[in-house]
Amino acid sequence: MFVLGIDPGISRCGYGCLEARREGARPVAIGVLTTPPSSPLPERLAELQQELRALIAELHPAVVAVERVFFQVNVRTAMAVGQASGLAMAEAAAAGCDVVQYSPNQVKEAVAGYGAATKNEMERMVQTLLGIDQPLRPVDAADAVALALCHIAYAPRLRLIDQAAKR
Amino acid sequence: MFVLGIDPGISRCGYGCLEARREGARPVAIGVLTTPPSSPLPERLAELQQELRALIAELHPAVVAVERVFFQVNVRTAMAVGQASGLAMAEAAAAGCDVVQYSPNQVKEAVAGYGAATKNEMERMVQTLLGIDQPLRPVDAADAVALALCHIAYAPRLRLIDQAAKR
Repeated sequence: MFVLGIDPGISRCGYGCLEARREGARPVAIGVLTTPPSSPLPERLAELQQELRALIAELHPAVVAVERVFFQVNVRTAMAVGQASGLAMAEAAAAGCDVVQYSPNQVKEAVAGYGAATKNEMERMVQTLLGIDQPLRPVDAADAVALALCHIAYAPRLRLIDQAAKR
Repeated sequence: MFVLGIDPGISRCGYGCLEARREGARPVAIGVLTTPPSSPLPERLAELQQELRALIAELHPAVVAVERVFFQVNVRTAMAVGQASGLAMAEAAAAGCDVVQYSPNQVKEAVAGYGAATKNEMERMVQTLLGIDQPLRPVDAADAVALALCHIAYAPRLRLIDQAAKR
């Protein structure tokens, strides 16, 4: 099963696709979609939408995990993140994927074991879980991979809850 | 020339398409796209995207005017409005429309003559400009029509600025 994590953004939208296997997660495709800050916003949104659609069509993920956005920080950034997350969720749902959202704290808890994990601790845990020597770069891609790892960690529990609900 | 105003939202997305003519604006299509609050968010976004795409394909507007969103109010509403506005702008740009954004104050200034106009004053001005007897309902549709009227009022000035820039 392929799980695609998406760290939404208009200038930089990180993605990380992992294969969930019994013996651990295998990286399938990791990268960043970018749109030129010099272009008008509507064109950038259309471009991002097109690239997300192509990415999902190519990878055929069963699940797309998108970061749940909260608005504490910068208003402009928040707006852009909201717009990008809307596009990602719409494209994923239209392609028939299961779409899940996780908050940054849930991702930290699932990957590093506690919700207040630092950037460094997260980096090292992602390295360990993927069995790689170097920290993943760029950071947006690393965040997207952490989202996918988060879903892989939560998925067995979600299945149990589903089964319990069906009984 | 058709101008399509969009008041973005996920539960209720107002639209108002007007024909800009020398003798005044003519209403072409006015209404609200809705998605069921009981459905999961990603499915609602995919549905809204699909309906926006169909609406734009049917009306072929030259210009799509979307409300510029600011985040002062409720965080949840703001998030939903951001996601819906991203979908609307991406679909409009992908369909080859010119996409413009106006703030609520710009709309009030263009339609009622001043940025602090009340809901009531706006309603009456929209009625006068369209030559109709009753206030437009639902409110989301009326707001979308005001956006289209705002663009029609601004468009001659925008053209002059464009021409000046090309000289």
